[in-house]
Amino acid sequence: MPRAIAVLGGTGPEGFGLALRWVRAGETVIIGSRDAGRAREAAAKILAAVGGSATVSGEENVAACAATDLLVLTIPFEGHCGLLKQIRPAIRPGSIVIDTTVPLAASVGGRVTRTLGIWEGSAAQQAAELVPQGVSVVAAFHNTSADILNGDAPVDCDVIVCSDDAAAAQTVRTLASKIPGVRAIDGGKLENARILEQITALLIGLNIRHKGHSGIRITGLPEKAYAVS
Amino acid sequence: MPRAIAVLGGTGPEGFGLALRWVRAGETVIIGSRDAGRAREAAAKILAAVGGSATVSGEENVAACAATDLLVLTIPFEGHCGLLKQIRPAIRPGSIVIDTTVPLAASVGGRVTRTLGIWEGSAAQQAAELVPQGVSVVAAFHNTSADILNGDAPVDCDVIVCSDDAAAAQTVRTLASKIPGVRAIDGGKLENARILEQITALLIGLNIRHKGHSGIRITGLPEKAYAVS
Repeated sequence: MPRAIAVLGGTGPEGFGLALRWVRAGETVIIGSRDAGRAREAAAKILAAVGGSATVSGEENVAACAATDLLVLTIPFEGHCGLLKQIRPAIRPGSIVIDTTVPLAASVGGRVTRTLGIWEGSAAQQAAELVPQGVSVVAAFHNTSADILNGDAPVDCDVIVCSDDAAAAQTVRTLASKIPGVRAIDGGKLENARILEQITALLIGLNIRHKGHSGIRITGLPEKAYAVS
Repeated sequence: MPRAIAVLGGTGPEGFGLALRWVRAGETVIIGSRDAGRAREAAAKILAAVGGSATVSGEENVAACAATDLLVLTIPFEGHCGLLKQIRPAIRPGSIVIDTTVPLAASVGGRVTRTLGIWEGSAAQQAAELVPQGVSVVAAFHNTSADILNGDAPVDCDVIVCSDDAAAAQTVRTLASKIPGVRAIDGGKLENARILEQITALLIGLNIRHKGHSGIRITGLPEKAYAVS
């Protein structure tokens, strides 16, 4: 049975876009939401968009978490700690938690172009302190535009993947590379997530200033840097 | 008479590479160094590389600063405050100071893949507090690989330019776009320099991990975001 991906907060634009892309790529996705009804509606919308072969369902966040061992957090930063505490008892041992969260100052009424300072260094490192031992946090997908993910065009963006668990990072790079246009790059340890998170604030600023849906590409690396296995 | 560019710390790899590219583009460059002799040697090397039409000279840093109103700081972070304090009396009113400095933890014996926290937010904002009133600091060129700048190939990297002085930023974007391959992008206010500075630490990590000379490209913006005027 294929490993299902639970996209927690998957009714929001980033989560929905990732779910859509993975379902299109043939992955099994469980949309998680605070509201099971909204989760099921989102799943139905993806099913309608992708067609009959799609394997997608919707559940309340904790139930979605309990149903698999591959979790993606796609919630605004103001809900980050709360969601992790809520799902913590339901996280299966050995799970991978992919954290896409950017600690935008907007979370506390500030600007979307600025980030908050996080004591642990980054939202992803905060997550790593909140998950049970033996659960691996992988930081990724911070810089992929939700608008582009929700469209049909290839995603013109590299996904830099940071984790202290090399095997988990490899799994996530494979998952990233299933999205057309995405190249996945090993970005080293989880502590580097702080830079990925901040790049998003810069990209949001560029989007506002130049009216675009920006992403990033890393140049100057050998081809094998983008190889998935 | 054309506006000369003083590249302070221009005997180091980043400064030398920028100077080389600008001299090749027909700009007048003054290499600055603590040691006037080494500055003149670097200028002679560029003259030899570019040929007879090159306009490049070498001076001690303060003399180089006093000779023009377009300054580029290309020194390691450990020399950043000291150089600014030293040149301060020589900075002409209305000058533009382009700060390329990245506050790598290596400056205090730490890693090249980590940055120091700067009280003002970034090295560039620290510079803005140290220059005389009426002098504009522009953050740029953090992410262009010194190795690539010192070669002949086009530089496969965007230069994000941040400043609180829109006219100065425009001048710097024009200067950036004279380097083959570079696209210059308005990155907003000087406070955003902190993100540009941190991206360099990420790129250095990628270079070490993947054996490359990485740079970044911003995708998803309209063509006019890269237009120089």
